Amino acid sequence: MRRILLRVSYDGTNYHGFQEQPNAVTIEGELNKALSDLNQTEIHVIGASRTDAGVHAYDNVAVFDTELRMSAEKFVPALNTRLPDDIVIQSSEECESDFHPRKCDCKKTYEYRILARKVPLPEYRNNAYFFYRPLDIKAMERAAIFFKGRHDFNAFCSAKTVTKTTIRTIYNVAIREEKIKEGGRLITISITGNGFLYNMVRIIAGTLLQVGIGAIKPTDIPKIIMSKERENAGPTAPPQGLKLKKIEFKGGKSKKSAE
Amino acid sequence: MRRILLRVSYDGTNYHGFQEQPNAVTIEGELNKALSDLNQTEIHVIGASRTDAGVHAYDNVAVFDTELRMSAEKFVPALNTRLPDDIVIQSSEECESDFHPRKCDCKKTYEYRILARKVPLPEYRNNAYFFYRPLDIKAMERAAIFFKGRHDFNAFCSAKTVTKTTIRTIYNVAIREEKIKEGGRLITISITGNGFLYNMVRIIAGTLLQVGIGAIKPTDIPKIIMSKERENAGPTAPPQGLKLKKIEFKGGKSKKSAE
Repeated sequence: MRRILLRVSYDGTNYHGFQEQPNAVTIEGELNKALSDLNQTEIHVIGASRTDAGVHAYDNVAVFDTELRMSAEKFVPALNTRLPDDIVIQSSEECESDFHPRKCDCKKTYEYRILARKVPLPEYRNNAYFFYRPLDIKAMERAAIFFKGRHDFNAFCSAKTVTKTTIRTIYNVAIREEKIKEGGRLITISITGNGFLYNMVRIIAGTLLQVGIGAIKPTDIPKIIMSKERENAGPTAPPQGLKLKKIEFKGGKSKKSAE
Repeated sequence: MRRILLRVSYDGTNYHGFQEQPNAVTIEGELNKALSDLNQTEIHVIGASRTDAGVHAYDNVAVFDTELRMSAEKFVPALNTRLPDDIVIQSSEECESDFHPRKCDCKKTYEYRILARKVPLPEYRNNAYFFYRPLDIKAMERAAIFFKGRHDFNAFCSAKTVTKTTIRTIYNVAIREEKIKEGGRLITISITGNGFLYNMVRIIAGTLLQVGIGAIKPTDIPKIIMSKERENAGPTAPPQGLKLKKIEFKGGKSKKSAE
């Protein structure tokens, strides 16, 4: 029995999130279906990030165990022919047989995209949050800095969260601004941390947008964090702007690097 | 009665092309529905480009006549609230009452996008043609030059074409290459002309891809054009890579510029 690690990209628009659930189409459900068909036996993946409905990923990770005798990288074409075209395996490799992508140290990078423009653009409707009010990017950048470090992020997670601790470490928050050919700008908030609470990135994005329109001052951010009260932070920004960009595992997770 | 000119952007993925037809969802049909609802009377637009199923536009043009007394630019929000979110009016203005967007001199620019990469990316599945074979961009650029000028493009149009003449003028063909963050490249073929035959841009793109893989030599292009035989050109590239980027009308079409 070998454990295989997949790097999975998907457009989450047409899915009820990553996690398998009865009577709903999910990323995990589609992966299980494709793998079970390929292996001719029931397979269940373990995913690294249970992204929400409408959220996208370039690099989510899922592992599964197989008896199939084929080279690890061959799972890429074998699965892609079995998956719908909005889910694509980017790479596959053998990993340690006890590697669990949710029970290990890792660094995750999420991006939240905002289409800042007077009128929406159809091609961005499912992959950016359309925002027509003027945004003070400099203020947003000053606010972003305060999220860095090890904090109790209880004010930045949804009530649904069930977790041992709401303390997380944010390594970096960066805001990038690009002009769009059609006019207007695409603003990308990039956040790297050792893990994120439920809706945490979307609440940080929603709070930074409040800073952008002047409703929250950049220097208010430390007070909001310290309050640990959800009601003090901004609204949860909508899912379609969010994308899981990268997961890096500390100490190596592949068979090769662990040897 | 005033004639209003709309600049219309859309994601063509979910439409059977621009032109209204019975029992099919089309861009024109949606525009007519939204306008008829707003005007409380049946309205039919005249479109500039009848793009095919799956083809996109940033800047298609449609005109309609109205008795409504509202300032021309107010049609933008009034229509956008009535249209599905994959069709967006970018601007509206009054034009000459006899202006017909298919019966006037104009310059159209189309772009054809190719995702050159070993594995597809979900977010490009509906807006670029995935192509995994290596492409010689320099050869494609050398080939592209031969399309410029006034030629009989009969070899580059589908049999369906009903037109007085297959002579068209191409002002420019440019090939742009961008690296993608996730790895791989996005190749954009940009073509400007005074009009295009049925499937012409997609056949030029398909032919340039044949040049890119070495199946056609750049210096073969003049011979293919001169042959006037469709079978000598490359295949018709798929619709999702194509986007109508810009329509410029010569001599002005707006009320203001004509005064």
